[in-house]
Amino acid sequence: MDPMSPEELEQQIRAVGAERYHDKHPFHRLLHSGKLTKGQVQAWALNRYCYQAAVPRKDAALMSRTTDRELRREWVHRILDHDGYGDEEGGIERWLALTDGLGLDREYVTSMRGALPATKFAVEAYVNFVRERSLVEAVASSLTELFAPAIHRERIAGMLENYDFIDEKVMAYFRRRLTQAPRDAQFALEYVKRHATTRELQELCIEAVRFKCNVLWAQLDALHHAYVSPGLIPPGAFRPEDVA
Amino acid sequence: MDPMSPEELEQQIRAVGAERYHDKHPFHRLLHSGKLTKGQVQAWALNRYCYQAAVPRKDAALMSRTTDRELRREWVHRILDHDGYGDEEGGIERWLALTDGLGLDREYVTSMRGALPATKFAVEAYVNFVRERSLVEAVASSLTELFAPAIHRERIAGMLENYDFIDEKVMAYFRRRLTQAPRDAQFALEYVKRHATTRELQELCIEAVRFKCNVLWAQLDALHHAYVSPGLIPPGAFRPEDVA
Repeated sequence: MDPMSPEELEQQIRAVGAERYHDKHPFHRLLHSGKLTKGQVQAWALNRYCYQAAVPRKDAALMSRTTDRELRREWVHRILDHDGYGDEEGGIERWLALTDGLGLDREYVTSMRGALPATKFAVEAYVNFVRERSLVEAVASSLTELFAPAIHRERIAGMLENYDFIDEKVMAYFRRRLTQAPRDAQFALEYVKRHATTRELQELCIEAVRFKCNVLWAQLDALHHAYVSPGLIPPGAFRPEDVA
Repeated sequence: MDPMSPEELEQQIRAVGAERYHDKHPFHRLLHSGKLTKGQVQAWALNRYCYQAAVPRKDAALMSRTTDRELRREWVHRILDHDGYGDEEGGIERWLALTDGLGLDREYVTSMRGALPATKFAVEAYVNFVRERSLVEAVASSLTELFAPAIHRERIAGMLENYDFIDEKVMAYFRRRLTQAPRDAQFALEYVKRHATTRELQELCIEAVRFKCNVLWAQLDALHHAYVSPGLIPPGAFRPEDVA
């Protein structure tokens, strides 16, 4: 089959988000509308920490695979954004401000001892995808960032309004991502449109976005199963104090 | 066997440099003392480019393997130093200023088409070592930087004095490394001394420095064989204009 036009490729990638980005997951609707207990929000935050903590490893894995210096020079700022550099605290630290604000012990959060195994499996599947697939697929797997600003805006407004244990300070992570994610996503999208030049590569890139959506969705499924319905917390995983 | 003291480990690592760092290779003595033709210096510079270009991939591979954010925050500046970031041109660009100054075509250099296969094999062996060995061995393999400032000082002085086609501008790479390398090496040495806590790990770290010395030495052996003695240039490799 002939390759799609770059515009059609972009449209198909965006269609993946419309179909299965995790803004559609019931857990997020509960989270944003104030329907969760503090313990459930804690469970979300400490599980999502595993994902945050893995992102710089994923980005470094991508950089380790390319001989394209310009790509590395662009991509490295993602690592700086997340890990911080010099006086800039970085996104992971801002995430820990959220877990601090939720009253979670920092050592417990960063140890990941209380995180759901399914969370860790999903996150490591993402890191391994980026290590093992072609470079353009690895770049494409970041494109869920195209869909992120809407969910972040919704989350900031919803959580501030609906939870008395959430304030502006602990929402700093999401505020920052409102400006970082679109810049990153635009670069990655242009890269994919330029480098996925065969039909096969294009299909693989669309599949990469689907895969990444699955990584995000699976994390919420695990949270939902453990902490919402049926509320079956696996052995060893975090048990909120407000669980019956 | 009991672990060595950190001091003894440092001493044994330094002993590896005294025994086999590439400052002892005859090719370097020829290079620094002005005994090479311009064509031979070109061959050295374009082969060494392969190593320079691989270093950020190696450092990103190391970063992709560690969940220690503090280690990544420290290590990332190596990538910034080499690839450059924003207005900072970076070490690879400074290396290309050297190859430009030597009259080599930049596209030819960066394509690596003229580089010796043995150079590329040695360089990729280094990247793979960092990908595959334990993290502390990966860090230890960087410790040849402990021995670098002496050779860089000797090289700057020797090449400026002995070659009319070398000036300060093209030596900028080495000037910069005089300050970067000691900072990096000191951090890595402290890391290895702190984390190589068993005799077995300590021996592996010493072996990692030996391995890395071999990576550097093998590159000079290949240059020496191809361009000095017996001067047997492999098919497809760079042929200096001043070769008979």
